[in-house]
Amino acid sequence: MKKIGILGSTGSIGTQTLDVVDLHDDLIIVALSANKSVDQVFLQCVKYKPEIVAMMDVDSGVLLQQKLEDRGLNEIKVVTGMKGLIEVATYHSIDVLVTAVVGMIGLIPTVEAIKAHKTIALANKETLVTAGELIMPLAKAEGVSILPVDSEHSAIYQSIGATPYSSIEKVILTASGGPFRGKTHEELKSVTLKDALKHPNWEMGAKITIDSSTLMNKGLEVIEAKWLFDVEPEQIDVVVHPQSILHSMVQYIDGSCIGQMGLPDMKLPIQFALYEEERKFMPYERLDLVRLGQLTFEQPDKETFRCLSLAYKALELGKEIPTVLNAANEKAVELFIKEKISYLDIPLIIEATMDYYVEHLLDKQVPLSFDLILETEKWTYTYISERWQS
Amino acid sequence: MKKIGILGSTGSIGTQTLDVVDLHDDLIIVALSANKSVDQVFLQCVKYKPEIVAMMDVDSGVLLQQKLEDRGLNEIKVVTGMKGLIEVATYHSIDVLVTAVVGMIGLIPTVEAIKAHKTIALANKETLVTAGELIMPLAKAEGVSILPVDSEHSAIYQSIGATPYSSIEKVILTASGGPFRGKTHEELKSVTLKDALKHPNWEMGAKITIDSSTLMNKGLEVIEAKWLFDVEPEQIDVVVHPQSILHSMVQYIDGSCIGQMGLPDMKLPIQFALYEEERKFMPYERLDLVRLGQLTFEQPDKETFRCLSLAYKALELGKEIPTVLNAANEKAVELFIKEKISYLDIPLIIEATMDYYVEHLLDKQVPLSFDLILETEKWTYTYISERWQS
Repeated sequence: MKKIGILGSTGSIGTQTLDVVDLHDDLIIVALSANKSVDQVFLQCVKYKPEIVAMMDVDSGVLLQQKLEDRGLNEIKVVTGMKGLIEVATYHSIDVLVTAVVGMIGLIPTVEAIKAHKTIALANKETLVTAGELIMPLAKAEGVSILPVDSEHSAIYQSIGATPYSSIEKVILTASGGPFRGKTHEELKSVTLKDALKHPNWEMGAKITIDSSTLMNKGLEVIEAKWLFDVEPEQIDVVVHPQSILHSMVQYIDGSCIGQMGLPDMKLPIQFALYEEERKFMPYERLDLVRLGQLTFEQPDKETFRCLSLAYKALELGKEIPTVLNAANEKAVELFIKEKISYLDIPLIIEATMDYYVEHLLDKQVPLSFDLILETEKWTYTYISERWQS
Repeated sequence: MKKIGILGSTGSIGTQTLDVVDLHDDLIIVALSANKSVDQVFLQCVKYKPEIVAMMDVDSGVLLQQKLEDRGLNEIKVVTGMKGLIEVATYHSIDVLVTAVVGMIGLIPTVEAIKAHKTIALANKETLVTAGELIMPLAKAEGVSILPVDSEHSAIYQSIGATPYSSIEKVILTASGGPFRGKTHEELKSVTLKDALKHPNWEMGAKITIDSSTLMNKGLEVIEAKWLFDVEPEQIDVVVHPQSILHSMVQYIDGSCIGQMGLPDMKLPIQFALYEEERKFMPYERLDLVRLGQLTFEQPDKETFRCLSLAYKALELGKEIPTVLNAANEKAVELFIKEKISYLDIPLIIEATMDYYVEHLLDKQVPLSFDLILETEKWTYTYISERWQS
């Protein structure tokens, strides 16, 4: 029996994790968490009967508790706020914690879960993008595995197996290229929100779909790859592969490349992480290379899709600059979704914010810390609000 | 220091093994063997100073001994015949034995090497095609690793890593399709020897190049795959992939596919086997998916390229039928090279020989043995000589 906890059980990764749990008798949900989606979490509680549930929003927690009592599910403990989220993340009976919350809110619970020796199935991008420099040594010191859940890093993880990371020459991340692949800078000027929300291969939330269209999503994955696989920025390549079949690959020092292929479905990397690298039957459609006919590959256009270059720049600069990149991107995408800025303003805002921070605030003498990361995020939000939102 | 012995040091795999040894200070040649190529073996002796050398041909052995003495290399022991080949195969200081001899002559020395607990870098196709049923349990009982050297099986081996074979759903062997890919049965009627000797991607000997054009080469690999990876015939697929970049892949029970990619170069799988799965730097050109642009995949045409179907049939029948298939193919290709039969006679002869054996000689009660395999080979040679050569 493997006992699973989920931070962010109502989101896309959270619900797909539950789909995977549905496939297997030896996976048990013991802990859930969400922000405000009381009705959805209530139904999850009825179905999975977890031991503990956290609602980030306190009022939602009170409401959930009432609904559970009405249903006679008093034995499910309801906790709230960041304290509750941490209680869930470190809950005694959890074997594997899926960190599927979106945003910086996942950072501290993940740290606490590592300290509590929970295997981490990592779906929260911010954890490694902003704090990889702190998280990876901590996980190593605590002897905790960090198993990537997104398809690219899982692909590399699956490809590497037991091979020592010192044998890696390059990590090659594939990118679908998004809906604007092949478009010129000129053509991107007129892109609308509706255009940006159409992803060719994957169904995802609005924020990540737009990140995928700007290649910022790939940029954030480049940063994560550095920490997950202990490689330098120049060892990480991005290749555009519109069919999203080769999910990524590793190139070894002997030139051999091992890659993972499959139909695009997040449930596979989720299951691989839940079972801590053990293969278990999945009843879904199989990859058929013959029916597919071809896989194609192109260079990413880093000039037009400037976000990818900015991510490499942030990775080179290190320290809290990836936090600035990530937070500035969050805000810029939010402004674009609210239709307050144009599509091409996204990279402009991110770059201007990074430049400002590097010139006026970056102090290379100050070591990175979780506090500094959280402060930097706050500064970035404020800076962008004041400069572009008012 | 890893001490290497080579059975068949003057052939294509043998000389490429020496190229790999040249790259590394910690690989030492201690034993060589060849058939008659005295001059070439002499030069290898001068360069690598092995401790022992076997010449299959006794006169060649005498000649080699003389040349070595003239050069003052008296310390190199020269042995001859099958006894000599076995002495080399089991030589005390060998860590890894590369079995690169072509033909059934490799069988008994390989068996003896397994009994002497040598790690086997297997390049001799006949070993597993004819005797997989005996070799694999023997290797398991002796605790000996059989590391495949040809590119397809090495690709699968590299892809599997430490994953248990019970997680394998399918093994997918790729085939370049050879020079006649897409041709109809009608068009193959006029194929000449010269046409058949042109392989699009790999440079190999005449026999294997023709086997590659008929898809028999892939058929023999299907049989080897069964034994190497403990899978059933219906778990082995062949996909035509003209670029020869994806060298093969494994599909797991969760639907995930792991494949090995690279530029076509036998030195990589040779090195991977010599170092028993450890990655070591190789100074050759790297795979560039972007420059390549695309990888394409097609169904093999098993009707037109009947040899592939015959191999599956032999595998289903089991026992000594793969030996009949292999020996009949050897003879038929020899007749084609001597321009005594047409290209399309190759599968006809193989099938007729298999059918005759199954109808008149196969006794399913008699367990497979090395003696039976050797007898069956002899019978096949004689049958074909009498029926088609006279």
